[in-house]
Order: sequence, then C-alpha cells, then structure tokens
Amino acid sequence: MDIKKQIIDRIAENHLFRSGSPAFKEKLEKEANLTRIHKGQVLFIAQEDADKFYIIHTGWVKLFRETFDGTQAIIDILSQNHMFGETSIFEDDAYPFSAEAIEPSEIISFPLSLLKNEIENNPAFSIAMLSSMARYRKQQDLEIEHRTLQNAPQRIGCFLLRLANQEHKGPITIHLPYDKTLVASRLGMQPETFSRALSKLKDATGISVKGSTIEINNLSDLSGFSCAACSSEFPCQDLKKETV
Amino acid sequence: MDIKKQIIDRIAENHLFRSGSPAFKEKLEKEANLTRIHKGQVLFIAQEDADKFYIIHTGWVKLFRETFDGTQAIIDILSQNHMFGETSIFEDDAYPFSAEAIEPSEIISFPLSLLKNEIENNPAFSIAMLSSMARYRKQQDLEIEHRTLQNAPQRIGCFLLRLANQEHKGPITIHLPYDKTLVASRLGMQPETFSRALSKLKDATGISVKGSTIEINNLSDLSGFSCAACSSEFPCQDLKKETV
Repeated sequence: MDIKKQIIDRIAENHLFRSGSPAFKEKLEKEANLTRIHKGQVLFIAQEDADKFYIIHTGWVKLFRETFDGTQAIIDILSQNHMFGETSIFEDDAYPFSAEAIEPSEIISFPLSLLKNEIENNPAFSIAMLSSMARYRKQQDLEIEHRTLQNAPQRIGCFLLRLANQEHKGPITIHLPYDKTLVASRLGMQPETFSRALSKLKDATGISVKGSTIEINNLSDLSGFSCAACSSEFPCQDLKKETV
Repeated sequence: MDIKKQIIDRIAENHLFRSGSPAFKEKLEKEANLTRIHKGQVLFIAQEDADKFYIIHTGWVKLFRETFDGTQAIIDILSQNHMFGETSIFEDDAYPFSAEAIEPSEIISFPLSLLKNEIENNPAFSIAMLSSMARYRKQQDLEIEHRTLQNAPQRIGCFLLRLANQEHKGPITIHLPYDKTLVASRLGMQPETFSRALSKLKDATGISVKGSTIEINNLSDLSGFSCAACSSEFPCQDLKKETV
C-alpha cells in the first residue's frame, strides 16, 4: 500500500474526518498531495492567501509569526499526524502564521476548499470541527497555565509527555528536532535555561538524553514530576482525539 | 426599557447571535435570567455538570482551575459583555474551569440546551460559532506569544488596551478590579513585579493610576509602547467581533 493511501486511511479514522461524507473522503483521497520538503523550506507566510491545509506525515514543522520589532514568535512546533493551516478558512482565507520545515519532512496537503464545502454542507462535520476547536482551546488554556505555574524542568517534561504514546507500557524513545533552540523557544525559555532545566529533569526523573533522542524508562516518574503543577489529569485527556 | 431587554438586544447584534434563527432569539429572551451576585460568589466549579452559559452585564468574573499541588491558575478575568461557559457543550457537558465573581456583578444566564439545539439545527449558526472559536484561538496564540516576547510593562499596557474602546478619540477611563493581585496573576506576574511594571508603564506612556482607575490620555502612546512586541496590528483585529 502506498504512503498516500496509508495516510488517507489514517485520516479517515480520525474523530474529525470520521464525520465527513463519503464524497468528501473520496475527494480528499483524490486531491491529496504528498511532498518531501527540506529543512528550512517555507510552506507559507503569515497573511498570505490560504488555499491549502496540511498534515505532517514525518518530520517537524514550526509555526511562527514576526513581531513589529522583528522578533520571531514560535507558536508551535509540530510533528507526525498534526494538522495545520485549516483555521485560515475563518481568517478571511489568509494564513494566521507562517510555517517552515525544521527537519526534512513529508507533508500532505489538501485544498482548503474541500474543508470549506464540507463544513458548509454537512452539519455533522461542522459540529465535529467545533468539537475539535474546543479541544484545541483547552490545550491553549493549559499552555497559558503552564507558562505561569510549571517550572522549567516540569515544562520540558510536559512537552515530552505530550509527544509520547501515553498508553504505552515500557520504555519510550522520543526524537526531538536537532535544533534545541527551537524547542526552548516553543517552551518560552532561553537556550541556557533549557539546557539547565533538561539536566535537572534528567536527575529528577531518570530520563536519558543522547543528542536529540530522549529515552523514557518510566513514564510515571516523568508524569509524577511534571503533572504536579497542572490542573489536568495524566494521561492528557485532550490528546486522545487531537491528532489525525 | 428594562435591563434584560437591553442586554438581549445587544446580544442579537453580535456576530455570533446574528446568525441565530428567530425562534432561537425568542427563546433566549424568554429564558434569560439576570442575577446580581456578590464578590466571592461562585457560579460553577470545574468538572461540574454544565447546564448554563453566561454573559457579564456589569462587574468582573474570574475563570480558574486548581492544579494537583493546590495552586490556583487564573485562566482569565472577564468584564462587561464577555460570554463564558459556552464551550462546555464540547466538553461532555462539564465546565472546563471554575467561575467566581471578583466584584459585585450582574450576570445573565441562558440554558446551554438552547445553544446546543441551535448549533445542531442551524448550519449558519454552527459556522458562526466556528468562526467565533477561531478568533478565540488566535487570541490565545497571541497571549502565549506575549508571555514570551512582551516585557512586564508591555503586557500590562496590552491588557489595558484590550479593555479600552480602541476606536475612541480622546481620554479613556478604565476600571480594573480592586484586587490587583488577580490582574497580576492573570498576566502571569508576581504582585511585586506587577507594581514595578505599572510604575514603568506610567513613566513610559503618561497614563495615570488612581487606585483601580486608569486614565489613558493618549491611546497611541500606549499602543506604540505595548504593541512593539506583538505580531498583530493595533487596533486589535480579533476584538472587533469578540464581545457580545
């Protein structure tokens, strides 16, 4: 089975797309476009006319904006199975941020018009979309909460936990982007703070770090440490249906 | 004209509710319930079964959660015309946070079932709701960005600007909640940091502070100072249709 078909099948299982009409699913499959992009390749720029939305098959993508005094604000760094660009349909068809690959990546794109039509013509899909946006809203609430209440090692631990399969028993391996300054920036930290905090996290939870590979031997040690300063429960409820 | 009628008329003008069916608007008016609540009165607790959503007519309400180690996380403090509790319909009908009045307030409540029915039966309303949630999503993106990029005086300035009528010409008066520690907490600051930052903001922008009343003589001095570290433009685009 080719990669494109695999991805489409996975998408069809997702909470959001499950509510799509058969015609919508057929069109998604027909119009999906899988591309390999290199590190540093820009997919779109903030305020540009939006005509596609994207799902990551492999690799990492950063979403960012630039402030008037020229600083880059990292909104998120996304990995496998995450969707982005879809909210442009509520932003007068302009992308609300820029997107750039931070590793060599495989990205699948779809025409935004498909999504738009389905929302307008299929009430069940439009409600599933609302529910998906409510989940994202809750995630952002938690993110804002964590910026205030979690210390730096807890915040890194939380980031790792959210990348891990939280139902998995036994050791887990996580691959971070090579550029750690991006991870630091995503977590609202200076690079030096990030390095110090990662060392503390290692000592406190027994994770091991080799370059950009993290080994978690005991998930509950990591969650016990990181989730103490969180108002939500572990495993993270909002993640269950989040990715496609 | 009584207060309740006034509020309902204002709601009917709002971007979201304008898409409601005539029957929906009639029911909103019939089932609206205006209550005066005292400072410290709790409207609902996180995870409680949700059966109402609320709009603030006067006063201030804080939305918060508690973490496992017992700290209170302030999600937001809301004033006049803001709606809250409505996203519970996407959270298995449980409130995703707690709500408490931090000043004597007048609050209008509506049955959540009205909103739910309208979303399920009126596609235009469901799309308006999506668009309203996309705007909130963008606000939260900005909030996360500001935590990282704005310094403390800029963050206070931004908070004040978002409370002001940004189209207004001439001096503006803003009333903050009496309890400044709540404002500090909402902005992710310690109370001492907040006091120091407010002094710096006064010196930099010429605003005057008397107790919990802020006078802004020149909106553009304040926006010039605060919005330099923001990726969005002044006046804030997302605010135009935000409140009811």
